[in-house]
Amino acid sequence: MTDTTLRKLRYAMVGGGRDAFIGAVHRKAMALDGQIEFVAGALSSSPDKARASGRDLGLADDRNHGDWQTLLADELKRPADERIDFVSIVTPNHVHFPVAQAFADAGFHVVCDKPLVHTRDQADALVATVAKQGTVFGVTYNYTGYPMVRQAREMVRSGQLGDIRKIVVEYNQGWLASHVEGSGSNKQADWRTDPARSGAAGAIGDIGSHAENLVASITGLEIESLCADLTAHVPGRMLDDDGSLLLRFKGGARGVLIASQISTGLENDLRLRISGSLGTLEWHQEQPSQLVHLPHDGPKRIFTRGGPWLCEAARRASRLPTGHPEGFIEAFANIYAGVAADIRARLAGQPADPLAADYPRVEDGARGVRFIERTVASAQSQLKWTPW
Amino acid sequence: MTDTTLRKLRYAMVGGGRDAFIGAVHRKAMALDGQIEFVAGALSSSPDKARASGRDLGLADDRNHGDWQTLLADELKRPADERIDFVSIVTPNHVHFPVAQAFADAGFHVVCDKPLVHTRDQADALVATVAKQGTVFGVTYNYTGYPMVRQAREMVRSGQLGDIRKIVVEYNQGWLASHVEGSGSNKQADWRTDPARSGAAGAIGDIGSHAENLVASITGLEIESLCADLTAHVPGRMLDDDGSLLLRFKGGARGVLIASQISTGLENDLRLRISGSLGTLEWHQEQPSQLVHLPHDGPKRIFTRGGPWLCEAARRASRLPTGHPEGFIEAFANIYAGVAADIRARLAGQPADPLAADYPRVEDGARGVRFIERTVASAQSQLKWTPW
Amino acid sequence: MTDTTLRKLRYAMVGGGRDAFIGAVHRKAMALDGQIEFVAGALSSSPDKARASGRDLGLADDRNHGDWQTLLADELKRPADERIDFVSIVTPNHVHFPVAQAFADAGFHVVCDKPLVHTRDQADALVATVAKQGTVFGVTYNYTGYPMVRQAREMVRSGQLGDIRKIVVEYNQGWLASHVEGSGSNKQADWRTDPARSGAAGAIGDIGSHAENLVASITGLEIESLCADLTAHVPGRMLDDDGSLLLRFKGGARGVLIASQISTGLENDLRLRISGSLGTLEWHQEQPSQLVHLPHDGPKRIFTRGGPWLCEAARRASRLPTGHPEGFIEAFANIYAGVAADIRARLAGQPADPLAADYPRVEDGARGVRFIERTVASAQSQLKWTPW
Amino acid sequence: MTDTTLRKLRYAMVGGGRDAFIGAVHRKAMALDGQIEFVAGALSSSPDKARASGRDLGLADDRNHGDWQTLLADELKRPADERIDFVSIVTPNHVHFPVAQAFADAGFHVVCDKPLVHTRDQADALVATVAKQGTVFGVTYNYTGYPMVRQAREMVRSGQLGDIRKIVVEYNQGWLASHVEGSGSNKQADWRTDPARSGAAGAIGDIGSHAENLVASITGLEIESLCADLTAHVPGRMLDDDGSLLLRFKGGARGVLIASQISTGLENDLRLRISGSLGTLEWHQEQPSQLVHLPHDGPKRIFTRGGPWLCEAARRASRLPTGHPEGFIEAFANIYAGVAADIRARLAGQPADPLAADYPRVEDGARGVRFIERTVASAQSQLKWTPW
Repeated sequence: MTDTTLRKLRYAMVGGGRDAFIGAVHRKAMALDGQIEFVAGALSSSPDKARASGRDLGLADDRNHGDWQTLLADELKRPADERIDFVSIVTPNHVHFPVAQAFADAGFHVVCDKPLVHTRDQADALVATVAKQGTVFGVTYNYTGYPMVRQAREMVRSGQLGDIRKIVVEYNQGWLASHVEGSGSNKQADWRTDPARSGAAGAIGDIGSHAENLVASITGLEIESLCADLTAHVPGRMLDDDGSLLLRFKGGARGVLIASQISTGLENDLRLRISGSLGTLEWHQEQPSQLVHLPHDGPKRIFTRGGPWLCEAARRASRLPTGHPEGFIEAFANIYAGVAADIRARLAGQPADPLAADYPRVEDGARGVRFIERTVASAQSQLKWTPW
Repeated sequence: MTDTTLRKLRYAMVGGGRDAFIGAVHRKAMALDGQIEFVAGALSSSPDKARASGRDLGLADDRNHGDWQTLLADELKRPADERIDFVSIVTPNHVHFPVAQAFADAGFHVVCDKPLVHTRDQADALVATVAKQGTVFGVTYNYTGYPMVRQAREMVRSGQLGDIRKIVVEYNQGWLASHVEGSGSNKQADWRTDPARSGAAGAIGDIGSHAENLVASITGLEIESLCADLTAHVPGRMLDDDGSLLLRFKGGARGVLIASQISTGLENDLRLRISGSLGTLEWHQEQPSQLVHLPHDGPKRIFTRGGPWLCEAARRASRLPTGHPEGFIEAFANIYAGVAADIRARLAGQPADPLAADYPRVEDGARGVRFIERTVASAQSQLKWTPW
Repeated sequence: MTDTTLRKLRYAMVGGGRDAFIGAVHRKAMALDGQIEFVAGALSSSPDKARASGRDLGLADDRNHGDWQTLLADELKRPADERIDFVSIVTPNHVHFPVAQAFADAGFHVVCDKPLVHTRDQADALVATVAKQGTVFGVTYNYTGYPMVRQAREMVRSGQLGDIRKIVVEYNQGWLASHVEGSGSNKQADWRTDPARSGAAGAIGDIGSHAENLVASITGLEIESLCADLTAHVPGRMLDDDGSLLLRFKGGARGVLIASQISTGLENDLRLRISGSLGTLEWHQEQPSQLVHLPHDGPKRIFTRGGPWLCEAARRASRLPTGHPEGFIEAFANIYAGVAADIRARLAGQPADPLAADYPRVEDGARGVRFIERTVASAQSQLKWTPW
Repeated sequence: MTDTTLRKLRYAMVGGGRDAFIGAVHRKAMALDGQIEFVAGALSSSPDKARASGRDLGLADDRNHGDWQTLLADELKRPADERIDFVSIVTPNHVHFPVAQAFADAGFHVVCDKPLVHTRDQADALVATVAKQGTVFGVTYNYTGYPMVRQAREMVRSGQLGDIRKIVVEYNQGWLASHVEGSGSNKQADWRTDPARSGAAGAIGDIGSHAENLVASITGLEIESLCADLTAHVPGRMLDDDGSLLLRFKGGARGVLIASQISTGLENDLRLRISGSLGTLEWHQEQPSQLVHLPHDGPKRIFTRGGPWLCEAARRASRLPTGHPEGFIEAFANIYAGVAADIRARLAGQPADPLAADYPRVEDGARGVRFIERTVASAQSQLKWTPW
């Protein structure tokens, strides 16, 4: 009998072959802790490229497929102790839905990149399928995997900031400040600025949705209405490369969300400020191990990853002593660790430890799709407020 | 004959007596360089307090008045070589207009704090009076006195950022996060949250107008339309204590302006980011001697006050070698130095050197009044865009 | 009868004329608060330049002297209600002693720049004179005027750091990284690298003595022995432009002191770290309003100037609300405010309030002279430890 | 025939079992890129704990050994296509020598943690053995694996700083500020403060040797003489917990090296400043993706990991786009990637690409041992300078 607490979980990857960016990050994140094993794949929409990519990565020939349909069929034929535990979907956005739906429908656990799908109908269908199957479905809103984001969540939810009044979240990049798409030399730019592959929004979908998720996962507040201004600054661009939103949350909090990919010189500038009646928190992804707490009635405090005074969720999400920098891959690995804990719990027939199974789920992905849809609707409206 | 290039300029102050905050800052700023002399005043709306405050500050009895009307009448009677060169108005906002109008109308040069007046009609009247008299009229948008703000202006205007696309300006404070007004113990809170004395807006008028001025003075861009959400978060408060705006500028730039006085723990967090097609600038008032330049095609650069590679306007606005911190009072003093240079030029019958007479004028003050009015109108509108 | 609590104190300046740097800083610092008045001077060692400089600054002709001896003689002839209250000596170092000694001997209060004098004998003589006269004698170790330095002093002396174990103090500049002296174009470099005018040490005397004073004034610890390595990196330079010391303090603390004027690109990088058994403090002159406290048992805290939770000495040394930057001139002004408080107390025949009369005294200056002498002795010794 | 460019390299680990700290970091670093496989081990000096640890980590029973001698004997018996490619030694310091010597002598490639061994004789023996065998021997001075450290090396070595004049390197931690050893609850403290296991030095060996290596690897400068003050501040501690050194380098550069484990509140504060005649570089391990360049003749520049303008060595050492934080594990993985490249080159019978085989070698480890020995000798000497 397999000891499910010890064996490595097995996964297949769809997408993430040669020239891809984020697939390698997923693989490194899963490799990091030695608990998850890469055993199968369909790594590109081009069968030849898919197989070449799989050979690069050492996949066995009989599990290195030219398309995801073949991969799925093959896995279903394999015995349980060889079959993958889950699939990781890291394709461009437009491919997420058919793959996720098919694997979930077949009873596999799924991890899918964000934004989840293109439409609310697709999102609703996926949520329903996952509910019916009772399977695990993680969405890699990876920034919520940072320990200090979890510390922020704990501080907000336990009332340390008092009533939340103002939220300012920004996600600024500069890499799309000129017309780099369409030249064939920048595959990332090509598909992310193409409505057919990226969806109805550009910067708002690609990075704005991370900002939305960060706010929602930390505060639990629901957007009541929003007011968006989206722009394509670069001539000839088909999707927004810059957007700003006013937000109203249920309960009275107000907010601003900025997502920009034409902010020249900015790198991966995701930053958040949450002010409540008792204090403010600030977090910046480029210095992820710091969480700044500004109490209304005392000096500023800086919490750092690794401190024994952090909440358990933050402490569990940390691998190294304080002062030894952890980064993006570790945060990503924390999302996968949460998915893995949930899968292992199901394998063991036990309820998952909520502190262990800490990851964004299909419902979070669906909410993100709605955010994109409502933002695009607002951008086209003459009225100030578009309801959620 | 008086040698106007050497003698100290003489000023009277209206407002700024005991318990005031900003009056003392104006006096220190004027004293700093030894070029401006405090000779007369009407330092409070209460005659007794006015005179007591003047005695504290060493005013001669015959120039220490109980009200500004008496001060004005007395100055008009004095011989030219004794009379004040200008008046500095540092009262609560509602008193600005009558005093400024009366002194300007009498031919005196004027420096007035911001926001200039309560209404567009008042602003138009003042602009007309100053134009008619040909006098100097400075408005203490003091943040434009920082050397690195002037360096930013030079870099934007000379095209070093390319086409301006996105502007994010924030001015966050936390001192009004609880209901401190009305207790009698916080005079600043009392009048700044009172519509009769502060005007139609709270945070937007008090600090949002600084943010508007900072953007306008650096970029020269004109707002085409705006969309505002204003809130009074603290129960019982009569004016907004928090506001967020989307901005559209003529020429296509987009912007966000945030002004908040309920951002707990934040001190005087005025910060600006301007992104153009070639690069981005970032400036933060709490580290005023740094200007961060992020070129699209090279590593980040940090310009610091005092560097020989700065523009002449920035170098002239600096007193100390690099690394020796200058601050708020020096920036304030630079505004007064600009006013003084303009007055001295007129005394000498010569055109002013534009690099010396570098200060915000009555038209800047009038534009700030319009900004407040348009913001309040937008906040009350159901339509997304309120035209300028 | 003169009301000494209200009238401005009167001072004469020796040195600080055209081309000087620090004299103007002293004058601005004294002007800032409107409590001290500039009435007389001998502003250069060249009589013509002295008088021209005094005319620039608006000195009356009969108090604008060509040399300090004439100034002193003239003041002694004037009636008490016109005579200066103190003299401020801002000449190159070699002139400090004769001027300070003469004015102190004549019963005047004195403020003198640092390093106080060239030799221990001179320092001892001055200390004796001041003790005999019972006069005020301030030394402008200006960095101790920063509010957060006073907060650090309070935290260390009240035991919040526990037993002090390690002190690292650095003062790094880059302006002498090339051979700028002797060309006639850099008066500051000329005299500061000339043993006849600067004294036995270069960087150690000019800036190392500030570092020594900062440590002593904050901790009160006494150096037991030291070990110095001094170097002149720039070919042809006559005095050290870079030095590093190991320090042993009475009671067991260890330290490192670095002073360098060839640290290219560094501006005025005076920084201090003090670690005790319970916590560490960090302060950096270029961000003077922050004091970082790292407790052994909790998250980092950042104290900022203006916070109501600061000690009274820090609060008194502050003019503006938190977040409104104060800088070098304000710190300088705090030293003068301490001197002024002490002089006013004597004028009133009352003991000075220690919190008000907070400034470095002639004994601090004498200790600084000893520090320079012992450092130079150590640099010439083959033995590791040179006793204090 | 095995394709050595594709197959994963196989390694065994000695040390790193339950309760160890650094072993897990080595394993994660090797797992990260999917190029190195963990196949065998002797994970503790206690046979039972060794085997239990191996089971935790999924080692096959026949390669999970109770002691390193058995591991070595077993590997020598295995066929080449199954045998480990190298051993990774992550034991306490005193075990390094016998294990490294035995494996190297048997012809295995070796990676060993630092400090390499206890004595110069041991170091010389190891260097000789490796030279004789012609094998790969890496020492995990992991901080040299950071991309921006490699960028610093390129900038210094290519002359961008001019002649190097001053080097200040500090490595400060606070975790040994109280007497935590000996209680049985802190295994790391226990062996690192025990001369029998840690060696002749405490903080100097544990972290000072990293500082020495960082300076040497970036600048290539050789220490000519040094002057050390070592202290055990915590009562009862057997080894230094704090040390400061003055350094003189061949060619005239001067330096200061500080290593402290009693700097309360400091986390893993390794920082370096190198000043040359043309500019200064600053790097701080806690913000490893930034390299600050202060030219003598222009504004400060901040290079960040991922920029296309970095040198090739820095670009190769990077996995993620700029702004996506990489940290300690990635730097560690870069050392292993260098070792792996060198091993693969030998497997392929080809010379290694120097840019790929970029890692600290046995000679660097030997120099580190000498540094510790010379520092301890200096600390016991009355003379200022102890020659290298």
